[in-house]
Amino acid sequence: MGNADYECPHPVAIPPSKTLFKSLESSLKETFFPDDPFRPFKNQPLSKKVVLGLQYFVPILEWAPRYTFEFFKSDLIAGITIASLAVPQGISYASLANLPPILGLYSSFVPPLVYAMLGSSRDLAVGTVAVASLLISSLLGKEVNPNENPKLYLQLAFTATFFAGLFQASLGFLRLGFIVDFLSHATIVGFMGGAATVVCLQQLKGLLGLVNFTHQTDISSVMRSVFSQTHQWRWESGVLGCCFLFFLLLTKYFSKKRAAFFWINAMAPLTSVILGSLLVYLTHAEKHGVEVIGHLKKGLNPPSVSDLAFGSPYLMTAIKTGIITGVIGLAEGVAVGRSFAIFKNYHIDGNKEMIAFGMMNIAGSCTSCYLTAGPFSRSAVNFNAGCKTAVSNIVMATAVMITLLFLTPFFFYTPLVVLSSIIMAAMLGLIDYEAAIHLWKIDKFDFLVCMGAYLGVVFGSVEIGLVIAVTLSLLRVLLFVARPRTFILGNIPNSNVFRSVDQYPTANNVPGVLILQIDAPIYFANANYLRERISRWIYEEEEKLKASGETSLQYIILDISTVGSIDTSGISMLEEVKKNADRKGLKLVLANPRSEVIKKLDKSKFIENIGQEWIYLTVGEAVAACNFMLHSCKPNPAAAELNAPENNV
Amino acid sequence: MGNADYECPHPVAIPPSKTLFKSLESSLKETFFPDDPFRPFKNQPLSKKVVLGLQYFVPILEWAPRYTFEFFKSDLIAGITIASLAVPQGISYASLANLPPILGLYSSFVPPLVYAMLGSSRDLAVGTVAVASLLISSLLGKEVNPNENPKLYLQLAFTATFFAGLFQASLGFLRLGFIVDFLSHATIVGFMGGAATVVCLQQLKGLLGLVNFTHQTDISSVMRSVFSQTHQWRWESGVLGCCFLFFLLLTKYFSKKRAAFFWINAMAPLTSVILGSLLVYLTHAEKHGVEVIGHLKKGLNPPSVSDLAFGSPYLMTAIKTGIITGVIGLAEGVAVGRSFAIFKNYHIDGNKEMIAFGMMNIAGSCTSCYLTAGPFSRSAVNFNAGCKTAVSNIVMATAVMITLLFLTPFFFYTPLVVLSSIIMAAMLGLIDYEAAIHLWKIDKFDFLVCMGAYLGVVFGSVEIGLVIAVTLSLLRVLLFVARPRTFILGNIPNSNVFRSVDQYPTANNVPGVLILQIDAPIYFANANYLRERISRWIYEEEEKLKASGETSLQYIILDISTVGSIDTSGISMLEEVKKNADRKGLKLVLANPRSEVIKKLDKSKFIENIGQEWIYLTVGEAVAACNFMLHSCKPNPAAAELNAPENNV
Repeated sequence: MGNADYECPHPVAIPPSKTLFKSLESSLKETFFPDDPFRPFKNQPLSKKVVLGLQYFVPILEWAPRYTFEFFKSDLIAGITIASLAVPQGISYASLANLPPILGLYSSFVPPLVYAMLGSSRDLAVGTVAVASLLISSLLGKEVNPNENPKLYLQLAFTATFFAGLFQASLGFLRLGFIVDFLSHATIVGFMGGAATVVCLQQLKGLLGLVNFTHQTDISSVMRSVFSQTHQWRWESGVLGCCFLFFLLLTKYFSKKRAAFFWINAMAPLTSVILGSLLVYLTHAEKHGVEVIGHLKKGLNPPSVSDLAFGSPYLMTAIKTGIITGVIGLAEGVAVGRSFAIFKNYHIDGNKEMIAFGMMNIAGSCTSCYLTAGPFSRSAVNFNAGCKTAVSNIVMATAVMITLLFLTPFFFYTPLVVLSSIIMAAMLGLIDYEAAIHLWKIDKFDFLVCMGAYLGVVFGSVEIGLVIAVTLSLLRVLLFVARPRTFILGNIPNSNVFRSVDQYPTANNVPGVLILQIDAPIYFANANYLRERISRWIYEEEEKLKASGETSLQYIILDISTVGSIDTSGISMLEEVKKNADRKGLKLVLANPRSEVIKKLDKSKFIENIGQEWIYLTVGEAVAACNFMLHSCKPNPAAAELNAPENNV
Repeated sequence: MGNADYECPHPVAIPPSKTLFKSLESSLKETFFPDDPFRPFKNQPLSKKVVLGLQYFVPILEWAPRYTFEFFKSDLIAGITIASLAVPQGISYASLANLPPILGLYSSFVPPLVYAMLGSSRDLAVGTVAVASLLISSLLGKEVNPNENPKLYLQLAFTATFFAGLFQASLGFLRLGFIVDFLSHATIVGFMGGAATVVCLQQLKGLLGLVNFTHQTDISSVMRSVFSQTHQWRWESGVLGCCFLFFLLLTKYFSKKRAAFFWINAMAPLTSVILGSLLVYLTHAEKHGVEVIGHLKKGLNPPSVSDLAFGSPYLMTAIKTGIITGVIGLAEGVAVGRSFAIFKNYHIDGNKEMIAFGMMNIAGSCTSCYLTAGPFSRSAVNFNAGCKTAVSNIVMATAVMITLLFLTPFFFYTPLVVLSSIIMAAMLGLIDYEAAIHLWKIDKFDFLVCMGAYLGVVFGSVEIGLVIAVTLSLLRVLLFVARPRTFILGNIPNSNVFRSVDQYPTANNVPGVLILQIDAPIYFANANYLRERISRWIYEEEEKLKASGETSLQYIILDISTVGSIDTSGISMLEEVKKNADRKGLKLVLANPRSEVIKKLDKSKFIENIGQEWIYLTVGEAVAACNFMLHSCKPNPAAAELNAPENNV
């Protein structure tokens, strides 16, 4: 980069300002319709539009005509496999939520049917989820004791499910799906791990055959509850539980070793239930401290519309529970659906999924189901079993229906401790310590968020963990904006490119010119900081030059390529920087202002203030111009301004 | 830019990774000590360090030795001028806060003395402020009725002042001054305007001589209160008030016309008080419906430490009031101090100011003062009167002391309606509609924030207004991150520069290459959006090329110059984009990853995944490489990958 080759610089364009309506429209569209869902509707006749619209909201209409017998064979196998998991899991999770065990079966019947019609994932298996079940018992249990007032508790659970569905569907209809994105991967890892730990701890009740147990979920309450009643521990229950836990973990280990053995893992829970029930039936262990499920009512889901307690004084609790469990259910469900969609290379629409989840929970709340979502364990089994479409959910629902109609008496002798083992085995897989290590290696802050969520859930409560994680995550975003980095740029040797001297130590300073890059939008939150930071850079550079006796500073080039946006506080900040520079006899030069920024600088007359000729397309051109000035009119920098580029070029 | 001149590209540097401790240290330093306050302490002997430290915390030690008699003459005149304003304003604002009028005088005695020692502004005049006074009456008045329980109300006001001071000082000591920056300029304009409107409305009580008045501040309650008791209106009071208001606005108009007349404006309130008092004294209007201040206790501030109600059941209200008024006081005070400092070209340290504000309020709460800050009106008069240092505050405090000791009986006949007029005249100046118009012109969103604050305060309450404005401001920052813009870049003719085709319509597309720029850090909050948006760009570009029958797409260059940071969700997103591109037979190329980003990409093995040779320093070099590939091995793009640049260059 020579000093003499001063070329005519490329002009910086100021895009024409759009009307208020136009710019509002485009920004609303980008915010709420980034995926442009209306694309296929363009230039179509009305009848086609109606069909497309129906297919949009009810995806089964879109894929059912293409359904083949080949697909059905795969879906049948997958459906039966997940049903064998769904029955014991449903019963276990319902007791985790302190709800009657039969509700777990009901919840595997209606919601999967609704999802099969409305959902866009082909691999998601619908069912109750452990974390949401735990949340229901901990949030509702605070207000109403499920043992003393089971009817009210049940009503509140249905009401919460209704509101969860309503909330999920509204998010989808209002296209606010991106709210789920604010639960980052790190948050989910920590939160799930914490919830799994808490759920495992809760299983100590079943494992040790305890009758009284704390309603708190934090580790210290649970430990106090366990160790304050050592005399109540039942060894029969403990031995049985540990055996089954060992069996389940062993099958898991095998199926992990070879993917073809997935069915060992998938069938293990049902096998445990059958074995356990047989054992109890034969030894009459239910009379020796091994608690059993007992009588399950035969028959399909009774309607529960009249149980929705809209007039209850606990309505607010139900709404809060609904919203929290709804968001958690969505986050897990959407994430699971998306993971498998990426595997199989198809697309999932987050907003559509939310509508499907919402509808299935609203329908569920009217048919004696509690909150359902897309559990990872069941969906993974579904995927491994080779499901092709959501028909596997229909098969599962049918299998559960048959169970409800004819097979419930067989669960009379199923020991609760086996259910505890099933839950524990499933939960241990959710504590993803490898992901946490990965976070630590790559991003310390993400690790902090993850650990905040984990420790908050384990030592505080599920809500505390969530609040810690979300607050930390948002704080990071705000901190990025409030404390943007500023870099000194230097010239990369043998090029016209300028890059941060921190990253490229070989980059050379340009004598007499300070080049600063600002690394964030300039907003109210950082305007004061940036002003002070820029004046400190200038001060430090001047001190350095004074000490070394080099050319004194003449130009400050602000590279604002990375400034995506600016507000009025930011513009005032630039005006003050300009004033400060003027006072020190320095010339302020801007490089590469982007369209949003230059529009606002133009409107606020800052361009007139700084002079159109001091705004360049690239740092290279700005430096060339400064160098040209420095060398052609060195003695008097003030005169350089008078002989501005117009005269020289 | 020719296709044949493929030069050796410049390598992208991966800066060496710092140790955890080092990087934590540097990021904490940038966050909390951006102004590097320890700079002057370096390489100094211990005694010098102690002196510097003292001077840092007690700035008067720094400038007092340089104080001259010339300075004192200026400060004396300025001090007396602001004292003449301080006395009537103090009394008015105290009644606005529903506190005894004498507290307004007390508050202009102790806090200015404390500030003169600790403050770093030379122009700030300390005193009570209208908005904080209003806030105290509206927040405390909700819990305790000042007429029914004046002693408790007074105690809570002192306690709130104590906590305000404690909060302000802690912010300063913890170097969290940047919290104040989250109140943007737009928020302050709207909030101040709203508060001024509300304060003016409250003055209708004094102006119309009403005895009963609502404790609500929203416009509908006030209007209902005013028009429900039209029979109580006193015309004497109204006429007197309007006359004085007219007089005050007239003097304001004159002093605005010519800056030399500033003293007309400064003296007007005192003149009004004297004239009004004389008028009442001569006509005995106090017996005809014109309320007067009445007896004011002679003597200096009594101690009030024993009144701090730390054990009160209303402690939480006091703390809340303290924090809210403290933040508002700080925001106004720091902004005012900063504005004048820029005028006179000296520097104000926000954290130091906070400590000074905090200390003066803690001291004030122990000496019967309520919340003080740096009111704009008084500071402007101080500045115009030619003050040189904080000594003008000492002069004012002395003048107020003399008033307290000897002159309080003269205020017996001062009519309340004159005080109302003084407040209204001051408040009308705070409704800065020109600033609002400016916001509308330059930044619609800032205008929305401003109007949100204004309407929230006027139609709801002061808190509602604040919450609306802060929420909207934060939402904007979050939305910027959650919905980053993506641009298609094109080649600026006759250059090697690539810029957004939206901003530079003359920029040319490069055949077979899609160049995308991402305009924000890639975080969990936008990772999903970006993945979908990028795949939509690719889809649209492919459709366009298909329609026009041009060269099919072969390369996607992601220009990540403007991506300042990335987290683990962001890296997963890039991995998915890479997978998607591979599946479509497209090659993903990165241009200009910055140091934060490339470090994390390296750690997470994404660089290995994409191939070091597909990461370039500039978009220009990336395009040159793609073009070289396209033209040297056109028939089979897959083969191009095998004959990677290593062989060809």
